[in-house]
Amino acid sequence: MPPEKSYHMTPEQFRQYGRAVVDWIADYYERIETLPVLSQVEPGQVRQGLPAAAPAAGESFDAILQDMNKVILPGVTHWQSPNFFAYFPANASGPSILGDLLSSALGVQGMLWATSPACTELESQVLDWLVTMLGLPQEFLSTGSGGGVIQDTASSASLCAMLAARERATNYRSNRRGCDGKLVAYTSNQAHSSIEKAAMVAGIGMDNLRLIEVDERFAMQPKALARQIQQDRQSGLIPFFVSATVGTTSSNALDPLPAIGAISRENGLWFHVDAAMSGTAALCPEFRYIQDGIERADSYTFNPHKWMFTNFDCNCFYVADRKALIDTLSILPEYLRNQATESGAVFDYRDWHIPLGRRFRSLKLWFVIRHYGVEGLQYHVRRHIEIAQQFAQWVKQDERFEIVAPAPLNLVCFRHRGGDESNQLLMDRLNRSGDLYLTHTRLNERFTLRFCVGQTHTGLRHVQNAWRRIQEEAGKL
Amino acid sequence: MPPEKSYHMTPEQFRQYGRAVVDWIADYYERIETLPVLSQVEPGQVRQGLPAAAPAAGESFDAILQDMNKVILPGVTHWQSPNFFAYFPANASGPSILGDLLSSALGVQGMLWATSPACTELESQVLDWLVTMLGLPQEFLSTGSGGGVIQDTASSASLCAMLAARERATNYRSNRRGCDGKLVAYTSNQAHSSIEKAAMVAGIGMDNLRLIEVDERFAMQPKALARQIQQDRQSGLIPFFVSATVGTTSSNALDPLPAIGAISRENGLWFHVDAAMSGTAALCPEFRYIQDGIERADSYTFNPHKWMFTNFDCNCFYVADRKALIDTLSILPEYLRNQATESGAVFDYRDWHIPLGRRFRSLKLWFVIRHYGVEGLQYHVRRHIEIAQQFAQWVKQDERFEIVAPAPLNLVCFRHRGGDESNQLLMDRLNRSGDLYLTHTRLNERFTLRFCVGQTHTGLRHVQNAWRRIQEEAGKL
Repeated sequence: MPPEKSYHMTPEQFRQYGRAVVDWIADYYERIETLPVLSQVEPGQVRQGLPAAAPAAGESFDAILQDMNKVILPGVTHWQSPNFFAYFPANASGPSILGDLLSSALGVQGMLWATSPACTELESQVLDWLVTMLGLPQEFLSTGSGGGVIQDTASSASLCAMLAARERATNYRSNRRGCDGKLVAYTSNQAHSSIEKAAMVAGIGMDNLRLIEVDERFAMQPKALARQIQQDRQSGLIPFFVSATVGTTSSNALDPLPAIGAISRENGLWFHVDAAMSGTAALCPEFRYIQDGIERADSYTFNPHKWMFTNFDCNCFYVADRKALIDTLSILPEYLRNQATESGAVFDYRDWHIPLGRRFRSLKLWFVIRHYGVEGLQYHVRRHIEIAQQFAQWVKQDERFEIVAPAPLNLVCFRHRGGDESNQLLMDRLNRSGDLYLTHTRLNERFTLRFCVGQTHTGLRHVQNAWRRIQEEAGKL
Repeated sequence: MPPEKSYHMTPEQFRQYGRAVVDWIADYYERIETLPVLSQVEPGQVRQGLPAAAPAAGESFDAILQDMNKVILPGVTHWQSPNFFAYFPANASGPSILGDLLSSALGVQGMLWATSPACTELESQVLDWLVTMLGLPQEFLSTGSGGGVIQDTASSASLCAMLAARERATNYRSNRRGCDGKLVAYTSNQAHSSIEKAAMVAGIGMDNLRLIEVDERFAMQPKALARQIQQDRQSGLIPFFVSATVGTTSSNALDPLPAIGAISRENGLWFHVDAAMSGTAALCPEFRYIQDGIERADSYTFNPHKWMFTNFDCNCFYVADRKALIDTLSILPEYLRNQATESGAVFDYRDWHIPLGRRFRSLKLWFVIRHYGVEGLQYHVRRHIEIAQQFAQWVKQDERFEIVAPAPLNLVCFRHRGGDESNQLLMDRLNRSGDLYLTHTRLNERFTLRFCVGQTHTGLRHVQNAWRRIQEEAGKL
């Protein structure tokens, strides 16, 4: 056999280029406010800057980094900019980025306890920490009958909740024989689109997902839910699942969990709670009221990758009865059998979600919690809410604008009184200026601006500037 | 409002700690061969080293890094060790780790083109590069009617393929009204467990997934497939999907794609091809025969995060008709509407998979391809195969052992002639020694050892040592 060649990066090169990348990142964060928040490229522009084919021979690391600046960066919308107020945040932080770097480097697969015990055990432990940090029910602790797992997104977590519910309702018949079109799920007409997608994926069908009407605060009406369940039963259908939202995407509405939970119990429905962004607020005891009633939930999900300084992907998904989840998703082929699994003494997280492979995602979450401590996390979440509330005050004081929905936390929904077109124009001009980025929704059929405060480095001055720019552009309408 | 405090890591601290982590990683790779490949901890041992609750106050970065060494590392199975021969590889590399680091730092969400155009366009472009690099059909190019997307795992990709097939077969009725238990899917009894999981998740049901018998090479028997389809049709069922495997997990068997593709076409089935690990071999023209017949495939998936030096998660999923996939998975709530999407001129990758959120995963793949160049990737893949073939020769020459399945590429299935217990004992002793890590399967009901060569730094000497250790332990049986 010929002697070995190597095209690999040596450890020495890794030290050198690794430092270059670390410096690139630090520089990026130092100048991020000078960059237009929303990328200004046209469709196809980034691709035009890339060669049509892969290079035959390897290129230097410097050349790649140069293209990061030249080709990639102009096409990036700067989600980490403190002037980002669009959608929901997806905030990152130094400790998170470095924790994730270690995860990439260790490159372990945590599909089974046996394939890297630390990957499983750190995850269980940190998710138990969060139960206490957020004041969640004891049923979610891994030391009891429940437990938590990190998934990629709330979409996937809610899908898994729906699947476990489906199997519980059919005594695992759907897994064996397929769905039969009789199961009915419930959520509000303000719930995230992922619930609809889950109904499609899981073989339930969109027509069998009831979008329950909401009250004037955009929160699900429990009476309408109860009525609909009753009606479906009478039609010979089988109600099996309800998803309530703590902080809807559109307007941050808070569904009344105690009433929805009670109806779920009475009717034997699986009660899922989606707190994708807003769940993080429960770090602060004074905001924990948003999840009152959570003690009846069969499953719960929130995203540290939205508002807890942990870079994507890091969704936390809890179940009160892990057996229901595992029995739904478990498959054990011979090539994955091992003594630890057979002993029953360990968790094999591949049975807690759709994918088999999984990276060591708890590292970044662990790094974040240890770096900030509970008090650091509380401080920044409180501060974001305080600043958002200040913004809401400014909006109220400007008679050209109106607040359109309750703003319990860090999302303010408002609009210019000039009508839909004015609001669309206002938003487009602001976003095209690059000074800030905000997005819209429709509430009561009307175009509504959403202003969400949650990026890691967003402080009072950024929101002051944003409000000044909004007022400026409003003056030009 | 009180003046701002900050618990965040400053750019200066990030430079300092970032360098510390880069050095930690370089050190780790320099000493990785001195560590036992398979973690030696007992269940619960890692958790015992962790505090019961999260820290109230933040801790120093040094303290966290110390715990990496003290608490985490003993619980890590070293997937990146050159002495790792278990399962399938999940190989990482310097350029991949650094590309992924930039992805974590940019922290963009690529759910829509508009939310970060570079995230979408680099992905489309690099996946088009791979079509050429691997000799895949032109139908998979994004510039035509198809296209590629990065997913987390082949499990998720195969699920999406099955969903698109389900909707095509029912004219989108399943998405609307749910499944009805009539659809039937096909794969071989050697296919990956993810196909079974997909059938459960998608509401098809395990009983409606036919596990077609295989020949003496563990490859699907097309005649048996055709017969079963015929029979199912006669029973009033609706055959809709077949998944063929290029390199099964158990023994690296190659299903006959031309015959399976022809049967799929004749019967109107969606033809999916899962080449999770082995697809990478097609980088080298001499191994491209493994995917002969791929030109009839509706969808195809392989994992650069297995054998192409790109750390998890990086699964590539291609479809010949992207409209079928998008129409299956698309949901467009008001808060995601934007001009670029309405124009139809862009891809919104959230419609190509289950999750909504997505990170900038193409960066690491782009870094890898540019660093190695096509020739560097080819060299290392060829070398792994060459070394695995050498190993197979040694096994053949030792009369205590036998080869149990064809070994076309980098996986060798073999066993000691002493029977199941001897093989189990042999494997356990080798793994407990920490010198190497290999796993097992069952072929023709018999316990079989699997030896897979594919870790980034695995060279001839590691396989020589492994074989020496296997012989040594065999001598003690």
